Amino acid sequence: MQPPTTLIGPGDDAALVRAADGRVAVSADMLVQDRHFRLDWSSPRDIGRKAVAQNAADVAAMGARPTAFLVSLGLPPDTPIDVADGISAAIGESAEELGAGVVGGDLVQAAQVVISVTVLGDLGGRSPIRRSGARPGDVVAVAGELGRSAAGLALLLGGSTDFPDLLAAHRVPTPPYAAAWAAAAGGVHAMTDISDGLLADLGHICEQSGVGMSLSRSDVTVSPELVSAAKGLGADHWEWVLTGGEDHGFAATFPGDVPLPAGWTRIGVVHDGSGISVDGETWPGAGGWQSFAV
Amino acid sequence: MQPPTTLIGPGDDAALVRAADGRVAVSADMLVQDRHFRLDWSSPRDIGRKAVAQNAADVAAMGARPTAFLVSLGLPPDTPIDVADGISAAIGESAEELGAGVVGGDLVQAAQVVISVTVLGDLGGRSPIRRSGARPGDVVAVAGELGRSAAGLALLLGGSTDFPDLLAAHRVPTPPYAAAWAAAAGGVHAMTDISDGLLADLGHICEQSGVGMSLSRSDVTVSPELVSAAKGLGADHWEWVLTGGEDHGFAATFPGDVPLPAGWTRIGVVHDGSGISVDGETWPGAGGWQSFAV
Repeated sequence: MQPPTTLIGPGDDAALVRAADGRVAVSADMLVQDRHFRLDWSSPRDIGRKAVAQNAADVAAMGARPTAFLVSLGLPPDTPIDVADGISAAIGESAEELGAGVVGGDLVQAAQVVISVTVLGDLGGRSPIRRSGARPGDVVAVAGELGRSAAGLALLLGGSTDFPDLLAAHRVPTPPYAAAWAAAAGGVHAMTDISDGLLADLGHICEQSGVGMSLSRSDVTVSPELVSAAKGLGADHWEWVLTGGEDHGFAATFPGDVPLPAGWTRIGVVHDGSGISVDGETWPGAGGWQSFAV
Repeated sequence: MQPPTTLIGPGDDAALVRAADGRVAVSADMLVQDRHFRLDWSSPRDIGRKAVAQNAADVAAMGARPTAFLVSLGLPPDTPIDVADGISAAIGESAEELGAGVVGGDLVQAAQVVISVTVLGDLGGRSPIRRSGARPGDVVAVAGELGRSAAGLALLLGGSTDFPDLLAAHRVPTPPYAAAWAAAAGGVHAMTDISDGLLADLGHICEQSGVGMSLSRSDVTVSPELVSAAKGLGADHWEWVLTGGEDHGFAATFPGDVPLPAGWTRIGVVHDGSGISVDGETWPGAGGWQSFAV
């Protein structure tokens, strides 16, 4: 089912998508088998849903709503048909949940499963939310739970099947889109998708805005199961929360004098200068997230 | 250098591209090493230019001008830096020649070189040119020379370095964009990019328009070097001309009572019914083009 924004869908040389705003937000990501997903860890549906979520989060972080996806699939010749169908069906279903169409793409033979997604988004007449808009005095806030994808990955790498919710968070991120759109409508100054890890992604805002940030761990919501999972693996749950990637929550800065929109939690402040301190000290950890190596 | 249509380029969660028309034409293709190009046959620059050309041809076939490209590159970890740089530089340069920006994309590790391109295009207020618009009585016409990419591929497969222009035509297609835009401005009824081969792509127009076509080989321009190359390889140059893919010329149908725009050659007529005849008979050959097998 194509939404009203799809003027011409698949089947011609190109698709045609409505862009009533006169501008189109656009982003692209490529997911590669054994680097961004593993067929023994994730179902084809999980993989398709993840591909849509991480792209949709990128345009949502600009304040835009997805209108259309283009999906190019590279598949080995011996790919079981249910893998190809499962990925495609999940992409179509996820796009439809977002009110967007899958309007084009390509299907080619490749040595491994490669999923390349482009998303178009509509700003609805509003200004795009940049990473460069943070100002001293702003409140730093996050939407979505942090560290759950990293915890799920650590559990999968350790062969654990405990904490199914954390495993699911790694397999299929669920970006809190409504919070991002509420922020865009509610005066947010700067916003980004948390894909590389909280500190790394806040670092992008700091660099592009020319500011520093002070965060307080006591303000960060950490679920008990994250603490339990870390204990079981001898890991530090703060490493997951502060540097784990792929949760696809959102981080933003808001003017200090207005209430935060629904879904957002204050975790710190923006100040003059540069760099990010956590509880008054520079975080000594590894920083941003990397795809798992093969 | 970003053109004026690039409102926000790379470096944020998403790019923002002007779509003054209120609609955006969009298409995506994926090129895979050893299937769509070979690193021993083509330079990194050739590969980058080909990736842009085949995508730009898709939006041009709708009558649109490219405004922006997104390029996701999958590269093996041992890819020489000059390969990655050459592909990227050629993509940037080709986009700029078209007046378009490279506004985003992704860079990931993969088992082979994979290039995934999405192109956005601007219709400039005109109606999109569909494959479904052909009508009985229309003139069938082509823009661009046919069969040259297939000839170049046959020469490369045979280890020949004769006919450098044909080898170049395979390595880097040069779509006659101006002819496509002139057609869109000049009352064309149906148009498509010739990517699968003339008969296959005209077949798409026939199917989607519910018409048939009669073509005359004596009206098709065939260069002497194509005939010479075919003779040297014991091949049939008409097979290349009628079924060779990847030339990325354009095929179209025009109303019978108006002069063809510059760059177009009449090769037949549209009639009631279905199917395509060549000199009064159904072409017995293989039909559409397939990527070379590995």
